[in-house]
Amino acid sequence: VLGGDSRAVARAISLVEDGSEALEEISANIMAGTGKALSIGLTGAPGVGKSTLAARLVAHLRSDGDRVGVLAIDPTSPFTGGALLGDRVRMQEHATDPGVFIRSMATRGHLGGMALAAPEAVRILDAAGYDVVIVETVGVGQSEVEVASQADSTVVVVAPGWGDAIQVAKAGILEVADVFVVNKSDKDDADRTVKDLRSMLEMDSQDDPPPIVQTTAVEGGGIVELWNAIFERHVRQRESGELAERRRSRLIREVESLAAEKYRMRAVAALDAEGQIAEDLVAGRIDPYRAAGLLSHMIGSGTG
Amino acid sequence: VLGGDSRAVARAISLVEDGSEALEEISANIMAGTGKALSIGLTGAPGVGKSTLAARLVAHLRSDGDRVGVLAIDPTSPFTGGALLGDRVRMQEHATDPGVFIRSMATRGHLGGMALAAPEAVRILDAAGYDVVIVETVGVGQSEVEVASQADSTVVVVAPGWGDAIQVAKAGILEVADVFVVNKSDKDDADRTVKDLRSMLEMDSQDDPPPIVQTTAVEGGGIVELWNAIFERHVRQRESGELAERRRSRLIREVESLAAEKYRMRAVAALDAEGQIAEDLVAGRIDPYRAAGLLSHMIGSGTG
Repeated sequence: VLGGDSRAVARAISLVEDGSEALEEISANIMAGTGKALSIGLTGAPGVGKSTLAARLVAHLRSDGDRVGVLAIDPTSPFTGGALLGDRVRMQEHATDPGVFIRSMATRGHLGGMALAAPEAVRILDAAGYDVVIVETVGVGQSEVEVASQADSTVVVVAPGWGDAIQVAKAGILEVADVFVVNKSDKDDADRTVKDLRSMLEMDSQDDPPPIVQTTAVEGGGIVELWNAIFERHVRQRESGELAERRRSRLIREVESLAAEKYRMRAVAALDAEGQIAEDLVAGRIDPYRAAGLLSHMIGSGTG
Repeated sequence: VLGGDSRAVARAISLVEDGSEALEEISANIMAGTGKALSIGLTGAPGVGKSTLAARLVAHLRSDGDRVGVLAIDPTSPFTGGALLGDRVRMQEHATDPGVFIRSMATRGHLGGMALAAPEAVRILDAAGYDVVIVETVGVGQSEVEVASQADSTVVVVAPGWGDAIQVAKAGILEVADVFVVNKSDKDDADRTVKDLRSMLEMDSQDDPPPIVQTTAVEGGGIVELWNAIFERHVRQRESGELAERRRSRLIREVESLAAEKYRMRAVAALDAEGQIAEDLVAGRIDPYRAAGLLSHMIGSGTG
């Protein structure tokens, strides 16, 4: 992985998907080589053109000489065949480029699901020398927002006429967006969508509200402007110390979640081993807090 | 709460929202009184008419003499003013009925968020003697699906012309739905939506595929059919033992999550107390697995 071998990277990411025990060793060995890549979370409702936009961004970055990794993630559903095939089709022009690594990711066993698997996969690409890692998620639910907001820079894509301004607000995404993209901006109601977004951002009254960039990804319009908006904000956040602070709190939260998930596995095993707790719980003789307390005592005293 | 006093119920649910420590005692005292209510999760995209449908269901249940609790939950967003006000307006006819308890719920501090808070609130209403508890969630993201699928019966509402069939598949909701509702069935493309849903359910090939009921909630059409569909499936699941199995695994998962969240809080405190772990992590000297292992050791040996 550290040598940038794309087959080694692919195998390592498969281990992340599986939640393999080999991950602990890989993670320990690559950690010191991470921290150089700029990670970009790309999220938005299905159909807004995220994949086309990602392909255009990749082309732009390649013309600058950057190596790019792309992870396509759908954390919510096993029904991803269509979306991810779509990604691959649109990404095809980059499939044979050794400077681009493209991968659709699912979790098949990683403890903690995609929220913990995605940052590990990003670190693998980072350690392998990819300059930019794009994490594309499907949908705007809480899990997608969580995954996308683990990146250094979160780009939220909307398209005119999807009622997207409201969806964005509903998903709690205003708070995590670094850059908004209104794609399909050749459509009639694009200006209206920009206006809606702007007034929502004003209501939210952040210190440094995210810029709104208009693109027509199919024709390649606005891609340079989009990259510039992402990069300018990134530089500003790096210089202000916000990037370092974000990466720090992200890592700490990740460790807390990892510790909690490992503990959950011990709790599952302890509940299995001591069937009486489950029986008492189901019969209503003890409540969930008491059951959790009993489990914690069992695990703590080493009998679990 | 056990006496069915609605002010006591309201106060107890506020404690759930706050994640108050008093919960442990309340939870212990009401547990034996739970298990009688039928809980119904009602989910679907904003605008499909869930609230109107819920109000109609309440009216129908009241005409049968049942006491009904309604919890309106938006787990993903602080931007809920509009939606929840909507609920209240549509629910107004029931607001003065002592046999109906209506409450919009948010989490202000409950550990584990709505996924753990919602089942506690349902148990409070159950113990207070409400025969049916409707949990209405906003949206079809993973969190909403999680909350809605914790009910005994999960009802998924779609409306024609929203591209909802695909949204439903994306949200992984096929697997958790007990009954599908196509609301606004007076619209032209309602039949098309029913057809789309049916073919998706056929692809999914479940043993006992969920029925699809067509309603026009504003006019009150199809509500009796909907209730009959919910209740028939509930009876079937009760007789086959599936309901008991579901409730059992739900409680066990809840305890596991509760134990893991309590542990997460200890991990957060341990990371704070032992600053060196965070420093080493952020500097890349140790990786997240090693950090989680060190934390686990600290907490286990009682130094955390």
